[in-house]
Amino acid sequence: MTYCVAVMVNAGLVFASDSRTNAGVDQLSTYSKMFSFGVRGDRALALLTAGNLATTQAVVAKLKRDMQQERIPNLSSVGDLEEAAEYIGEVSIAQQNKHTGVHAEATYDHSASFIFGGQIGTASPELYLIYSAGNHICATLETPYQQIGEVKYGKPILDRIIRRNTSLEEAALCALVSMDSTMRSNATVGPPIEVLIYERDSLRLDRRFYFPPDDAYLLELKQAWDHKIKEAFSGLRVYSWTRPAREERLRPGDA
Amino acid sequence: MTYCVAVMVNAGLVFASDSRTNAGVDQLSTYSKMFSFGVRGDRALALLTAGNLATTQAVVAKLKRDMQQERIPNLSSVGDLEEAAEYIGEVSIAQQNKHTGVHAEATYDHSASFIFGGQIGTASPELYLIYSAGNHICATLETPYQQIGEVKYGKPILDRIIRRNTSLEEAALCALVSMDSTMRSNATVGPPIEVLIYERDSLRLDRRFYFPPDDAYLLELKQAWDHKIKEAFSGLRVYSWTRPAREERLRPGDA
Repeated sequence: MTYCVAVMVNAGLVFASDSRTNAGVDQLSTYSKMFSFGVRGDRALALLTAGNLATTQAVVAKLKRDMQQERIPNLSSVGDLEEAAEYIGEVSIAQQNKHTGVHAEATYDHSASFIFGGQIGTASPELYLIYSAGNHICATLETPYQQIGEVKYGKPILDRIIRRNTSLEEAALCALVSMDSTMRSNATVGPPIEVLIYERDSLRLDRRFYFPPDDAYLLELKQAWDHKIKEAFSGLRVYSWTRPAREERLRPGDA
Repeated sequence: MTYCVAVMVNAGLVFASDSRTNAGVDQLSTYSKMFSFGVRGDRALALLTAGNLATTQAVVAKLKRDMQQERIPNLSSVGDLEEAAEYIGEVSIAQQNKHTGVHAEATYDHSASFIFGGQIGTASPELYLIYSAGNHICATLETPYQQIGEVKYGKPILDRIIRRNTSLEEAALCALVSMDSTMRSNATVGPPIEVLIYERDSLRLDRRFYFPPDDAYLLELKQAWDHKIKEAFSGLRVYSWTRPAREERLRPGDA
């Protein structure tokens, strides 16, 4: 499995990804799921991947090859993010279809999904979720983040913290906390963790960070968050769980 | 969907359930998913249900009928919790099979799962998860809780808080917080919330609580927890997300 999350705030975009892949529990490996494509001063694009590793690697290879060979469309030629998302969806479908039917009896899952975002020229930054069917949706100010992979454990903290005026640094911290909750509850998501911070209008992709499994800050964050959650919990007013009188707290209609 | 959770600690058991059922987004209804079966002084048993409502209602009806008609086995006759879990699994399979094939072309999902626990006589309290296939697993001191339905959003807080020496009152609070996180992130889980606290060796089922949607304590808890999580988050040390030097934070092998 995988967990990738990207957040869109007024100040720009934050991308975060884990690096664990598994094809069965005895085939755990480490692969980066974060890819960036940039032409400095013109465009800054980032892609996070989830799903079948052969498919996602083939998609990334094809995106790079199309750029190098200047085939149209490619990520340097597209006029806007939506066109790019459409193109990536088409490449994804083509790669998935290549291998479907080779072993018709097999139960391989070739599907893959992507988070794609960035900025081209002076247009606003955008953030897309590209489904395995190739279609896509964009993040909005009401729904300012996208997730792929093992998305549920890390969703509550995003819902609580991320607003349009959240700073890039806070958004990156929130993405790491969301990642921490996911890693704690699901063994198929794991470090190294990668984070990319994109500042609106910078058209630069160089605020990229790599946190290996033994990273001191990751460990500090994990312990601090656990401690603070326990502290928050212990500060809640406990309901007076005394034995209720017959008429209290009974369901309507109860005898 | 549904969210039910039950926790086993040294002092006893806590059961909590939501009450929302949905057959499509335009068929939201309210049904209790918590059922108790007791013979005071002899046994105290509780059942939480998830899945197809017709199946779970049929299972509960059959369990009650078997007790009334004194058919063997029934929940008054079984000698231990494991035997009861086996019996409930068999009843569940029989009810599911009744309707499978009636509309062979249909894509109805008749499946249902259950959390079942309690105490019989002087034996230790136990807690079981009964899968839709009818088989079951029991909670242990290492894994002291069971969940059914929409289980992921509310899992991290259980992993952080529940220990064998957690008090029943804290365990019940933790179950409510776990429920709150789930309701916040998933529209198919909703109040009323029911909580049942079972004190070890009491063989009584009368600490049962009903929280309607507008319950003052539920609202207070929701707001307090949201506030405390934000406070906890704002107390974390933010990583110094300065633009990394070329050699820092780069992946091994990066150019």
